[in-house]
Amino acid sequence: MSSITANTKTPESKCDVLIVGAGPAGLMLATWMARCGINARIVDKRGTKIYAGQADGLQIRSLEIFDSFGFCDRAWKEANHMIEMCMWNPDSDGVIRRSDRVPDVPIGMSRFQQIVLHQGRIERFFLDHIKKHSKNSIQVERGVLPESLSVDEKLMGDHSTSSYPIKVKIRHLTEEEAIPAQSNGSSVSDGLFRSNLAEDDTDDLIRKGQSKAGTDEILKAKYMVGCDGAHSWTRRQLGFELHGEPTDFIWGVLDIIPITDFPDIRMRCAVHSAENGSLMVIPRENKLVRLYIQLKEIKPDASGRADRSQIKPDNIIKAAQKIIAPYNLTYEYCDWWTAYQIGQRVGTNFDYNSRVFLAGDAVHTHSPKAGQGMNVSMQDAYNLGWKLSLVVKGLAKPEILKTYQSERRRIAQDLIDFDHKFSRLFSGRPAIDVLDEAGVSMAEFKQAFVKGNMFASGLSVDYGASMLVAKAGDATEQGDGTDVSSTSKSRIIGTQDLAANIKMGMRFPSFKVLNQADARPWHLQEKLRSDGRFRIVLFAGNVLAAPQKERLDVFCEKMVASAFVQPRLYKDIAVLTVHSAKRTEVELLRDFPDVLHPFDERTGWDYNSVYVDDESYHEGHGQAYEGYGVDKEHGCVVVTRPDQYVGFVGPLDGGEGWTGVESYFEGIFV
Amino acid sequence: MSSITANTKTPESKCDVLIVGAGPAGLMLATWMARCGINARIVDKRGTKIYAGQADGLQIRSLEIFDSFGFCDRAWKEANHMIEMCMWNPDSDGVIRRSDRVPDVPIGMSRFQQIVLHQGRIERFFLDHIKKHSKNSIQVERGVLPESLSVDEKLMGDHSTSSYPIKVKIRHLTEEEAIPAQSNGSSVSDGLFRSNLAEDDTDDLIRKGQSKAGTDEILKAKYMVGCDGAHSWTRRQLGFELHGEPTDFIWGVLDIIPITDFPDIRMRCAVHSAENGSLMVIPRENKLVRLYIQLKEIKPDASGRADRSQIKPDNIIKAAQKIIAPYNLTYEYCDWWTAYQIGQRVGTNFDYNSRVFLAGDAVHTHSPKAGQGMNVSMQDAYNLGWKLSLVVKGLAKPEILKTYQSERRRIAQDLIDFDHKFSRLFSGRPAIDVLDEAGVSMAEFKQAFVKGNMFASGLSVDYGASMLVAKAGDATEQGDGTDVSSTSKSRIIGTQDLAANIKMGMRFPSFKVLNQADARPWHLQEKLRSDGRFRIVLFAGNVLAAPQKERLDVFCEKMVASAFVQPRLYKDIAVLTVHSAKRTEVELLRDFPDVLHPFDERTGWDYNSVYVDDESYHEGHGQAYEGYGVDKEHGCVVVTRPDQYVGFVGPLDGGEGWTGVESYFEGIFV
Repeated sequence: MSSITANTKTPESKCDVLIVGAGPAGLMLATWMARCGINARIVDKRGTKIYAGQADGLQIRSLEIFDSFGFCDRAWKEANHMIEMCMWNPDSDGVIRRSDRVPDVPIGMSRFQQIVLHQGRIERFFLDHIKKHSKNSIQVERGVLPESLSVDEKLMGDHSTSSYPIKVKIRHLTEEEAIPAQSNGSSVSDGLFRSNLAEDDTDDLIRKGQSKAGTDEILKAKYMVGCDGAHSWTRRQLGFELHGEPTDFIWGVLDIIPITDFPDIRMRCAVHSAENGSLMVIPRENKLVRLYIQLKEIKPDASGRADRSQIKPDNIIKAAQKIIAPYNLTYEYCDWWTAYQIGQRVGTNFDYNSRVFLAGDAVHTHSPKAGQGMNVSMQDAYNLGWKLSLVVKGLAKPEILKTYQSERRRIAQDLIDFDHKFSRLFSGRPAIDVLDEAGVSMAEFKQAFVKGNMFASGLSVDYGASMLVAKAGDATEQGDGTDVSSTSKSRIIGTQDLAANIKMGMRFPSFKVLNQADARPWHLQEKLRSDGRFRIVLFAGNVLAAPQKERLDVFCEKMVASAFVQPRLYKDIAVLTVHSAKRTEVELLRDFPDVLHPFDERTGWDYNSVYVDDESYHEGHGQAYEGYGVDKEHGCVVVTRPDQYVGFVGPLDGGEGWTGVESYFEGIFV
Repeated sequence: MSSITANTKTPESKCDVLIVGAGPAGLMLATWMARCGINARIVDKRGTKIYAGQADGLQIRSLEIFDSFGFCDRAWKEANHMIEMCMWNPDSDGVIRRSDRVPDVPIGMSRFQQIVLHQGRIERFFLDHIKKHSKNSIQVERGVLPESLSVDEKLMGDHSTSSYPIKVKIRHLTEEEAIPAQSNGSSVSDGLFRSNLAEDDTDDLIRKGQSKAGTDEILKAKYMVGCDGAHSWTRRQLGFELHGEPTDFIWGVLDIIPITDFPDIRMRCAVHSAENGSLMVIPRENKLVRLYIQLKEIKPDASGRADRSQIKPDNIIKAAQKIIAPYNLTYEYCDWWTAYQIGQRVGTNFDYNSRVFLAGDAVHTHSPKAGQGMNVSMQDAYNLGWKLSLVVKGLAKPEILKTYQSERRRIAQDLIDFDHKFSRLFSGRPAIDVLDEAGVSMAEFKQAFVKGNMFASGLSVDYGASMLVAKAGDATEQGDGTDVSSTSKSRIIGTQDLAANIKMGMRFPSFKVLNQADARPWHLQEKLRSDGRFRIVLFAGNVLAAPQKERLDVFCEKMVASAFVQPRLYKDIAVLTVHSAKRTEVELLRDFPDVLHPFDERTGWDYNSVYVDDESYHEGHGQAYEGYGVDKEHGCVVVTRPDQYVGFVGPLDGGEGWTGVESYFEGIFV
């Protein structure tokens, strides 16, 4: 890192969190900042947001996250929905035929399925949401480039609210400087300038910028997050590296409206030709289809990188035509195109002393075909944002920030392993017969795809033990090696058996329940909003049985009496109840302690916190207790983190149960 | 009607359709104009849209209509959903108790249920939609008052595109003139100035406006629609009347956030007290609840109208407290309040020579408790808009305009009968026992409610025979008496038995089907967009059976060869196919004639017109053929009007079936 010497005229300002990069990861982080009321700034070196191309697939977990903020409906409505995956392979004559159909995503895991929509629209949803929730105080500052970074080592350990150890000099670019040159003069957008086949242009931009005067600013920040892509400037300042190697596989990408007699053009398809490489079909919104096309004739040169100038839409479509023959494939309209070289790399560090963090492509790059890049990047930021907000506000212990690297670097490693395997299966030549060991067996490919589906959905993420996840086992082994053991005197371990399908470390699954007060069905996960709060979810069981009612009452009395938890109720810790008695035999005010539906002098009782696992009039019976694996008589208590991941499971009682909840929070809150 | 003499300076302009009044009916009409690209203007005497109070209930059919335009999701997301209706009645001690729970709407009739959201938001959805689809060319002109109307009798019969028989002088009010005085100085909005207890202020506004200079405009129009409310200025100019009588029942309305221990405050409730009158609870969005409260102590005076000055929130809440005792009920926050006198009135005419039309409150007024007013008003305009658009464009015969009065006046008469009965049951004293014949029997009330539910949902609307509905029976008897018999040489009568549950005259019901090309499930009704087009819905049956494939091919050949129908295909008449073979055994391009999925040189084949009744991966099996009552082998053909009402049902063959379709369209198109 360089030290910053500003002349006396350079204006200085302060913010709590500086976000560098306004792609999906940066915008997700800014969304948390807006929702939690944090004084944040977000800068991006590009002068405009993107309007075509780039990432497109939205995995199930990303949609659940969007829904927790409240804008999933916009994506769901506009996107193309991918329902089925078709596999095409050479038959004994070497002619491609459909060999299999499988559901595109696992069945029964979520109310969402995979959808496809271009990244520009997704960024729009984020921008609108940030604007609304920050009341316009957080706006992406475009055409703004960080030039130098220094971190004051003396202040680094001081997480008090007056300490600003990070100093970044930023430069406001002119409009002309901030718009990258397309690689050709065509009217069709291409993404080569962002591709991993291109050199980074940040240094160029800095050099160009320095020839201008008077547009610098010194920004002091408490925390900083580099969401600045595969060429991350932030990562380079910190001296961190990406480890991994490129392969020889070069792929082209076309976003076109295809004119074709290929029957499955509106399905997701994996097409392995006998001799001409592979192709993937991703049907998009507005009749668009994205084709990923293996470019077998283009090879990396001695430097290990392919020559960009060889790659044009014309030779990409020709490669596709060879693969998809005997079907015809042409187009009149091309929306965007690019190319990339397959490789998997993961960052050595995600975190510099809990002060500067890296997220998204800055710490993991891989091939795009499994639709993981944007999703995992957003999920990095989703993991970090609430932790940072709680620490900035002085509510949570700074130690929780270490769980970011522990949790997300582990995921990145898993992702890289997944992609490594999946890409090779995909780029390899199909096996001719069982004796052809150099070829890829299509049975193996299908098996890998179906297994990979669960990983790709984002639903299999399972964070290791830490002060945020009260599960058994070695915290270091379960994460990326970072020490994230509990900070409190004695480590708490929850009782997983009480909620067999609400796994500590995994996201809280969803079943339908009814609001006790108005009988409206909701997916319970819809009630775990991303508002920065932890949640105590009380599975109250059969509240009409006197002993169970007694247990519930005792638990609630402990909650109200707790000097540590009670002052944080509703503000930092919400309470949600789901009981299993018959809805019509139970009354909210009569059968549930006040703390579960608090009274407000101006607006009366709260009617949106108590739910029931019962039959609805129009949407069936959610069978939530059964789905969650919770005993219908005795229930249990679950604590969710602000990101819907499960932190603790315990018995619903005033002993072990309440103590567990209290100790869990004592390990986190200041 | 007065004749208009303009001085030479008065500016003149022309439009095809002039809409007076920008409430829900006027906005629905403007929405059609925007969707169909009609040159329309919409004026409203008020200076601003409403921000609180007024109507709130959205019935199932209104939501289906919103969905057909594409904005139902906004209402569905923001609104409160009403799921259950609870009935409270005096027990033998005279104390109220819950006697019954019933689903708020009929089960299984639609993918929607009744929701509640204030009128201002609903108007916002319309305004946004009109803006988007008219590309900003249709904007509500507020603070604009019509002053005089004349219709040139000589031009009236000439529906050619150059004829503008209507001349309206309009005046642009100043901002001050256009904002009505609230009835009190409070910061709480009240609606008394719009209530039927208030005199109309249009004449006042005209008088005030005339004292100013230079803001008049002469507007010439081909057609005009008065959506200008119960005091309709347009209706008065035409000399048409509302027939009916007020009752002695006076009701108050409060939109409050209640503070209460009444257990069902988030349910729709009908509360009949023993001696103190009745109350209805309508839970709303944002913790609001609307209470309709019978004001037994306020009586109309000798003029038949109650004294407005007696009515204040204080005495309305006191009346409510008496009814709901022994439960407590108070509030800190009141959003809006008003009062009204129950009465039922229906217009003598909805239509002046197919040139000037009346819609909404201008032709029917009744009590608001069944949540019908806004819904039936919007549905009036929804019925009229597409007919007017087709005639303005010179596509359809002007005779179809007569079906507006025939269809909608009949509905208004049914509504008034329903409301008359329902209001009396609601305002009456509960019977003490079976011998108490003066009292209202609660069994009778419940029965009326459950039966009325189907009517109130809007789904039981069944338009009579006409050139637009090819059903048997007497066209005059089935409507309001207007002659709307077929205009073509020979009247066509469809074969209802072929689709037992797709009733001619009723709205096309909805079941889930899958897109053949991408396996995505859709409610079939979602594919009947309100885009101004009729639709030929081909239930293609089992296309894998050779004889059935042959029937389908012959039908399609006839369609392509038809000199009358073919030129209108896709532009004015869309084609939608639903087959019953197994999805995975059928291919779009191989098994379906081109006309069912037309080719475009720039964008290839159409992949959004052929559907299949088959099992989905994530949303079950729609069992659409079974639901529709259509034979799975042989199918049938159905024609829907642009408003989703069923016009014709016939066999899928080149004989009777195709001839029926062709004749149906010959009766409508020019």
